[in-house]
Amino acid sequence: MVTTTAQRNLHVHAQVLRIHASSEEDPYLLQTLEVTEDDFQCLKADQGILVDFASFPGKIISLLERCISSHASDTPRFQAVLSCRPSDSTLKIVETNDFKQLAHITLAFKPGNDFTVKQVHVVSGG
Amino acid sequence: MVTTTAQRNLHVHAQVLRIHASSEEDPYLLQTLEVTEDDFQCLKADQGILVDFASFPGKIISLLERCISSHASDTPRFQAVLSCRPSDSTLKIVETNDFKQLAHITLAFKPGNDFTVKQVHVVSGG
Repeated sequence: MVTTTAQRNLHVHAQVLRIHASSEEDPYLLQTLEVTEDDFQCLKADQGILVDFASFPGKIISLLERCISSHASDTPRFQAVLSCRPSDSTLKIVETNDFKQLAHITLAFKPGNDFTVKQVHVVSGG
Repeated sequence: MVTTTAQRNLHVHAQVLRIHASSEEDPYLLQTLEVTEDDFQCLKADQGILVDFASFPGKIISLLERCISSHASDTPRFQAVLSCRPSDSTLKIVETNDFKQLAHITLAFKPGNDFTVKQVHVVSGG
């Protein structure tokens, strides 16, 4: 099972959305994403997002909650699919209807390094 | 207003789905698409389509009907958006929710030539 957390940190001039995808079964699995306000403008244009940066984390959390709600179903309508590759990975939140798989969001993640893995373990108490 | 029709013709060995996008206001506007069973396999893989070739035209028509149903709304939930360019065009059927624009299908069209424009006028009695 992959657990995902969203964090927002206030830096001197910029807000950054950080998302960490980790696994309860594999303490070394960590995929991270940082989205600055500038990154978000590209993401917004590329993927037809209609909300602003401030509302974006809440929408991602809502989508993840829909994945959790449909997790017990034999044919889950919403799924979060993390595809890991050595240099870049993607997290897709996908709705499956009777016609096709609809990607609600596609986010490019990077594998965590030793430092970020330790950081996340300290924060989560793992 | 853009009107769209779907046709299926049985050739000697292959079935072909033909979609014509034309306009009641502009008799010279014609965009055409032909999808063979082989083309459909690529489309299916690229866009996460879950139905087979035989069910595909019916699904496209259902989506277009949803566009027609929501046409009268100030904020239509489903829209068919035809973007015309000199060499290639796209027809997207897009659902707008409170987060983003979801592309249910994206189809690559080609501008009609003199022959296909006349053919469509003969078929439609225009």
